[in-house]
Amino acid sequence: MKKAIVLLSGGIDSATTAAYAISKNFEIYCLSFNYSQRHKIELECARKVALALNAKEHKIIELNLRSIGGSALTADIDVPKNRNVDKATSEIPITYVPARNLIFLSIAGAWAEVLGACDIFIGVTAVDFSGYPDCRPEFINSFEQTLNLGTKQGVENEQKFKIQTPLINLSKREIIELGTELGVDYSLTISCYDPDSQSKSCGKCDSCQIRHQAFLDAHIPDPTKYVKS
Amino acid sequence: MKKAIVLLSGGIDSATTAAYAISKNFEIYCLSFNYSQRHKIELECARKVALALNAKEHKIIELNLRSIGGSALTADIDVPKNRNVDKATSEIPITYVPARNLIFLSIAGAWAEVLGACDIFIGVTAVDFSGYPDCRPEFINSFEQTLNLGTKQGVENEQKFKIQTPLINLSKREIIELGTELGVDYSLTISCYDPDSQSKSCGKCDSCQIRHQAFLDAHIPDPTKYVKS
Repeated sequence: MKKAIVLLSGGIDSATTAAYAISKNFEIYCLSFNYSQRHKIELECARKVALALNAKEHKIIELNLRSIGGSALTADIDVPKNRNVDKATSEIPITYVPARNLIFLSIAGAWAEVLGACDIFIGVTAVDFSGYPDCRPEFINSFEQTLNLGTKQGVENEQKFKIQTPLINLSKREIIELGTELGVDYSLTISCYDPDSQSKSCGKCDSCQIRHQAFLDAHIPDPTKYVKS
Repeated sequence: MKKAIVLLSGGIDSATTAAYAISKNFEIYCLSFNYSQRHKIELECARKVALALNAKEHKIIELNLRSIGGSALTADIDVPKNRNVDKATSEIPITYVPARNLIFLSIAGAWAEVLGACDIFIGVTAVDFSGYPDCRPEFINSFEQTLNLGTKQGVENEQKFKIQTPLINLSKREIIELGTELGVDYSLTISCYDPDSQSKSCGKCDSCQIRHQAFLDAHIPDPTKYVKS
């Protein structure tokens, strides 16, 4: 079995991506980050997902992005609620974390090199991408080239690094359909930007709204525990 | 004055790069990493250099690369000593840290975005580059493109990020000559991969040998404190 790194956040997309990598016969090494995000619940969810999927290893890297700030997810800025997420917008939201996927993929590249893995899976999607620039194929392709130019493995080996983005052209509904086929237990995952102390989702942030609508669209029961309003 | 991030390791190259950025009228924000490297002396040197150069800010990010390993600088692997560094070789040495510059530049990109700085200085050199793939212009150019594709600032602003590598075509001797002209106090810096507990350099690792030879070639007294052999 070939080894693959899977970036695991504890949300729907990365859990589906991990299950997809397994379905393609990869042995998965999951990578998560304690980047001083607003809540640690997603790390607990990532742990449960890695365990449920029988990951070979799950590494959590400590990286204090709060000391850099600049996002509602890493600084003391309120998460927007009750926005109309259907409204098409090209605006990049305040929940954007500067260079997050670039940083995470770079560290994934380092671990892949040490493991001798060529494949790095990331659950980005360019469809429901919330306007994040680091979820676009242009960025992913450019990163792949940069990683191959800047590492020993990329320069010396015939086998180059490949950034695998199986969800890139899927909508959130299609992702949930795919994951359900693959047996992903979405009750282990969380999408909310602002859950309460009992790990219940707010139901009002962009991420909650997109998640709930996707379950409705897919005609699959939403297993999420929401705060009673 | 325009703001610039300068990656500062505590060695000769980054100190010279920082002085160069100042000479070009940048206000410098220095960035160092406590990446669980073999010794913390270089962070102390970076602090002294940032202070001496009157940096606007000096941020040290904690990032445990030892949990990834794969290098003599971040794992329990011996640093090679008394190698013939004059001998041309295309081999990448064991002191290579997987994806280090990629990771550091990515985090620098995040901070630059938060500060509204477009310029990121890094003291890489393709001449005495010790065979590291992440010191080559091909890598730097590709990274610059990736950063501009994956960040809000790169996508939305007319002013794109620029990775500045003023030393890229300089030999270590030329770097020391440039820094001396710019008033850099090299006694504040350290290059040794394996200094003793009194911050004295071993004199035998590749980095010590290259440093000492460069001072000899430049006819500038070497201020380094070496372990008595």
